[in-house]
Amino acid sequence: MTDRLPVGIIGASGYGGVQLVRLLLEHPLVEITYLGGSGSAGQTFADLYPHLGHCINMEIEDCTPAEIAARAKVVFLSLPNGLASKLTPELLAYGCKVLDLSADYRFKDLSVYEAWYQGGTRTDQDVAHKAVYGLPELYSDRIAEADLVACPGCYPTASLLALLPLLKQGLVDHTTIVIDAKSGTSGGGRQAKTNLLLAEASNSLGAYAIASHRHTPEIEQIASAVSGHEVLLQFTPHLIPMVRGILATVYAKLRDPGFTKDDLLTIYKSVYRSSKWVRVLPSGVYPQTKWAVGTNMCFIGLEVDPRTGRIIVVSAIDNLMKGQASQAVQCLNIMMGWDESLGIPKLPFYP
Amino acid sequence: MTDRLPVGIIGASGYGGVQLVRLLLEHPLVEITYLGGSGSAGQTFADLYPHLGHCINMEIEDCTPAEIAARAKVVFLSLPNGLASKLTPELLAYGCKVLDLSADYRFKDLSVYEAWYQGGTRTDQDVAHKAVYGLPELYSDRIAEADLVACPGCYPTASLLALLPLLKQGLVDHTTIVIDAKSGTSGGGRQAKTNLLLAEASNSLGAYAIASHRHTPEIEQIASAVSGHEVLLQFTPHLIPMVRGILATVYAKLRDPGFTKDDLLTIYKSVYRSSKWVRVLPSGVYPQTKWAVGTNMCFIGLEVDPRTGRIIVVSAIDNLMKGQASQAVQCLNIMMGWDESLGIPKLPFYP
Amino acid sequence: MTDRLPVGIIGASGYGGVQLVRLLLEHPLVEITYLGGSGSAGQTFADLYPHLGHCINMEIEDCTPAEIAARAKVVFLSLPNGLASKLTPELLAYGCKVLDLSADYRFKDLSVYEAWYQGGTRTDQDVAHKAVYGLPELYSDRIAEADLVACPGCYPTASLLALLPLLKQGLVDHTTIVIDAKSGTSGGGRQAKTNLLLAEASNSLGAYAIASHRHTPEIEQIASAVSGHEVLLQFTPHLIPMVRGILATVYAKLRDPGFTKDDLLTIYKSVYRSSKWVRVLPSGVYPQTKWAVGTNMCFIGLEVDPRTGRIIVVSAIDNLMKGQASQAVQCLNIMMGWDESLGIPKLPFYP
Amino acid sequence: MTDRLPVGIIGASGYGGVQLVRLLLEHPLVEITYLGGSGSAGQTFADLYPHLGHCINMEIEDCTPAEIAARAKVVFLSLPNGLASKLTPELLAYGCKVLDLSADYRFKDLSVYEAWYQGGTRTDQDVAHKAVYGLPELYSDRIAEADLVACPGCYPTASLLALLPLLKQGLVDHTTIVIDAKSGTSGGGRQAKTNLLLAEASNSLGAYAIASHRHTPEIEQIASAVSGHEVLLQFTPHLIPMVRGILATVYAKLRDPGFTKDDLLTIYKSVYRSSKWVRVLPSGVYPQTKWAVGTNMCFIGLEVDPRTGRIIVVSAIDNLMKGQASQAVQCLNIMMGWDESLGIPKLPFYP
Repeated sequence: MTDRLPVGIIGASGYGGVQLVRLLLEHPLVEITYLGGSGSAGQTFADLYPHLGHCINMEIEDCTPAEIAARAKVVFLSLPNGLASKLTPELLAYGCKVLDLSADYRFKDLSVYEAWYQGGTRTDQDVAHKAVYGLPELYSDRIAEADLVACPGCYPTASLLALLPLLKQGLVDHTTIVIDAKSGTSGGGRQAKTNLLLAEASNSLGAYAIASHRHTPEIEQIASAVSGHEVLLQFTPHLIPMVRGILATVYAKLRDPGFTKDDLLTIYKSVYRSSKWVRVLPSGVYPQTKWAVGTNMCFIGLEVDPRTGRIIVVSAIDNLMKGQASQAVQCLNIMMGWDESLGIPKLPFYP
Repeated sequence: MTDRLPVGIIGASGYGGVQLVRLLLEHPLVEITYLGGSGSAGQTFADLYPHLGHCINMEIEDCTPAEIAARAKVVFLSLPNGLASKLTPELLAYGCKVLDLSADYRFKDLSVYEAWYQGGTRTDQDVAHKAVYGLPELYSDRIAEADLVACPGCYPTASLLALLPLLKQGLVDHTTIVIDAKSGTSGGGRQAKTNLLLAEASNSLGAYAIASHRHTPEIEQIASAVSGHEVLLQFTPHLIPMVRGILATVYAKLRDPGFTKDDLLTIYKSVYRSSKWVRVLPSGVYPQTKWAVGTNMCFIGLEVDPRTGRIIVVSAIDNLMKGQASQAVQCLNIMMGWDESLGIPKLPFYP
Repeated sequence: MTDRLPVGIIGASGYGGVQLVRLLLEHPLVEITYLGGSGSAGQTFADLYPHLGHCINMEIEDCTPAEIAARAKVVFLSLPNGLASKLTPELLAYGCKVLDLSADYRFKDLSVYEAWYQGGTRTDQDVAHKAVYGLPELYSDRIAEADLVACPGCYPTASLLALLPLLKQGLVDHTTIVIDAKSGTSGGGRQAKTNLLLAEASNSLGAYAIASHRHTPEIEQIASAVSGHEVLLQFTPHLIPMVRGILATVYAKLRDPGFTKDDLLTIYKSVYRSSKWVRVLPSGVYPQTKWAVGTNMCFIGLEVDPRTGRIIVVSAIDNLMKGQASQAVQCLNIMMGWDESLGIPKLPFYP
Repeated sequence: MTDRLPVGIIGASGYGGVQLVRLLLEHPLVEITYLGGSGSAGQTFADLYPHLGHCINMEIEDCTPAEIAARAKVVFLSLPNGLASKLTPELLAYGCKVLDLSADYRFKDLSVYEAWYQGGTRTDQDVAHKAVYGLPELYSDRIAEADLVACPGCYPTASLLALLPLLKQGLVDHTTIVIDAKSGTSGGGRQAKTNLLLAEASNSLGAYAIASHRHTPEIEQIASAVSGHEVLLQFTPHLIPMVRGILATVYAKLRDPGFTKDDLLTIYKSVYRSSKWVRVLPSGVYPQTKWAVGTNMCFIGLEVDPRTGRIIVVSAIDNLMKGQASQAVQCLNIMMGWDESLGIPKLPFYP
């Protein structure tokens, strides 16, 4: 085991943490050397997750940067928003590379973070400035050079992968973009909230945070950067009675109404030709979220409506994988100069 | 029982039929005198639905208009598209009133039906011309006079109730209307299709019939009639892993960007003041489909996004009730001059 | 409204409470005059349950016996175990009739309660002695005379209705009784527990409290009383990924191996002939829990295995209705000398 | 690829087939060279299962033994009962090794098969006689020598793994064995049956085939062989509203009432010490089916009830993996003398 890269997972007790543990246990070049948590410190990981008891025998420890840095060269932070920015400056100073799964380092302009996340005043603008947004299909080169990667949110991942070809090519009127997104309830994390109980959330469906969800400015920041001008868009999340998966249904009016579905499929396939985790589906096939479950895949289908002049793009991911943990491992592979697919599943189980 | 109105239910073996049976068994002024079906003729209703065996002991019979008319004064047709138009002219000629739950009589212009439903050439333009679209919140007066009511589709009911106040008042730019709709799988009926198996549809989510769903022209027909000019809109249905319920998330740009959420809530409450089945929710509350399950209710919540100038309206119904069977009973009550709420549940069970 | 019976519901914010509110809103002889709660006092009921906001406009108040008794003649207590015994003596002293949905008054011998419920020493043996076990199919006469009814647990209701004909007739060897019970997650109440989250409980199944569930002595107490000798049986509960419903699969060896399925069906139908809420299904038909959802029904199917000499009985109820709230209303009707079916649904919605 | 073992999968379009395809695509020593089907011949595999379209580009072909044998050295048969026995004799004659996932070769005594499966008279007693029952935790040595492996049913796998330590050691009175088993609906296969629709099977639970399920004699055959005398037991399957997973709750009376839970846990751990796919859980922990999903694991928990003298054992597997496809791959590895864990997942995704 001595040649393996020692990595730490801080916030191991949550859903992001348990995905990372599971993925990194099977990663051929990595060894988990530190599991950190606050409320769960002192418990064994198998106490929390007995289903992994046959494969891991580690205790969850405190989140002390010096301790972590003494044992890990790369650190995944899977903590509630606002905590990563307390640990990251010190971890970087110790020489660790950091992959943060929270929102703390996703914004170039911290005032946007402060406005949408109500987390108080941030004083780590210097650190934030170095962070790279960890969407490999867009920023692979920057990620390869980064010491600090801000892993994208789940909704932004699904939304941006659906939008990127349109934005890069300037194909749509950006004032007409509507993203109607649907997520399984695991997106709410492993917190015991009444509205996420099976008895409440099962057999039902609702929208939430209409016109106010915090992933909106994250999507807009990247969409603006890609298109070269400010983009304001409509984003509405919905809670779906299923465990995993996000479906983003994206609407926009085409600038050139002469574009056909085949034209758009050709463009999408071209943009994602070298992206092994994005699969543009054949004409007439739309993705099911289940197809992506347990994998790092993003499936994309699209349609053009000649009656209305709109393109409708549908993208499906596993919110805890491409939307969170496996995308972080993908970033790790790129940062280390490894094969991008090491330790990352691409084949779902079905049904 | 002699004073009760004798009614028949044709197509009693499907999900629409079993809702009607259940509702009409508890209706104080109605007696079910005929259950008709084709494939299921000769079976008892309790063979098909043992859960009602303690309350009904009737056999399903053939669908012969003369037989039906001899025993029923009002006939509910809950048949696959294309069959009602074979039976209805004769039933009307016998003096029956007809409530059709299929699409056969929803279109004033039968060429629209022919184009979207591929059902061949229709020759009953005269009968179709007399049909009234059975959305009581819009056409109560006409329904009261009708002999033939074309009950709305499930998606059109949810979509139109969300849109009506906007269309009536001309508040939005109709070219910007997007309806992102989500339905439980019971909307697919009691047919054994692979994609509706629990093993396939559970834990997953997908869009279907993008830019081509047959409820699109139905919504547009009524939206155009209400707004006084032709409306083309975007409608996308999704299949949700739950049994019952439709949520319609409706987007449109406000003509006057100065309108606030409170303004819109006031308008919605005003429009629906006398509609006992439509509940406009307080500011900040959005509906869950589960709230409407087993009832004739439509719950509506809305938000205005000052950043984008859009209104977002969310409506929730039970697709088999307000979207199908209980709305038909509501129409029956209006046709007969009865209290509109007879025999119709308004209180859901929760959770 | 002056002729209606004024009733109070204490613990209105939980799942038992919201069922009671919904049922009693439609009860023709009752008026809800008091909603009590501790944590939720000061909130309106519609704040907690917006889906009933169109039908009820009441505030939840404190649980002060004098206040309650001043406004209600009958009080439903739907509180966590251990609280009813604090309120009941005083409510009875004020002249109220009490229906307790908790376990506090289900045991004749309070030492059994103390041993299984760890609720400390009980000092209300006198009051407990007056309580009647509220299973109307067994103790209708006593309920009619009672001032204090201890409503049965959900599992005991399903288990006892399956067992009663066997125990009454002495048909089985009671040392061979195994009850394998399965419940939807609403049985865990409206508390936010991690293991009841949709993300955890959905798509999964497990047993819990094996050989130690507190409904075991409750079932045994009644089974012993009915059979005339002490019965010890095996009871194992399971958590099922659904909202409502209990299925009890009951196994026992027949004393007389010559008994056939038809013999047993005849006996069961005879025992339940006058019980309108118990439906013994035809030979070869086994119940689905969904058949009972939203109703006070108990569906029973059975089979005899001539290879092993066992009878297998399967019973299905809605855990929140016949297993809790509607059974309490059934008891109320009996206590008041009303028609037993007032305000109680018997027709489920399906699917 | 030339060194890889060429294998065929016949019946590739069903749920067993798609699991095998997925598993064998990642098996390091195997190459899929033939996909066979009857109804689906001529279609590409990605037409049926678009979620694998990025990893496989093969067409489904006819089921002609000569064709199959020309391209595959090992053949998995994942067909409806009764078809494997038509193909297997010829495939064996061509020199193929065969792993049959149906019931055709599970019975030493074909008259038992004929009696329970109503498949007509079997004439391949010679071939059936050579078949080895593919439960590696029991018959690893025989599987290593076999040319024809009859892979166990899903319920028998879960039931037998729970029972084996008891039977081997003669710890229980076999006349008291009750197996109450619960399965996700994928066990019904990819056939469109009304009762397996999400609209019907979701939110509900029921027993089926009480005292008559065809897995009963299969369990009894192996239980009898292990214990050295004839065993008749009670087996009851239930359909659970989830996709994958089986939970078997097994009851039996201990011969020696002095045995404690710790004794039994020690025995179970000892029996399964070298079985890497069986995990006996710590005292007080009972398995969730979800823990096994997507893996070849069987999780076992147990309890002793000193009140009744019974042991209760609960086992959990993925019905499509350890209960079907991954157990077949496990057998393949043993037949080929490979590491038993090649290509078989052991880490589930959770939640």
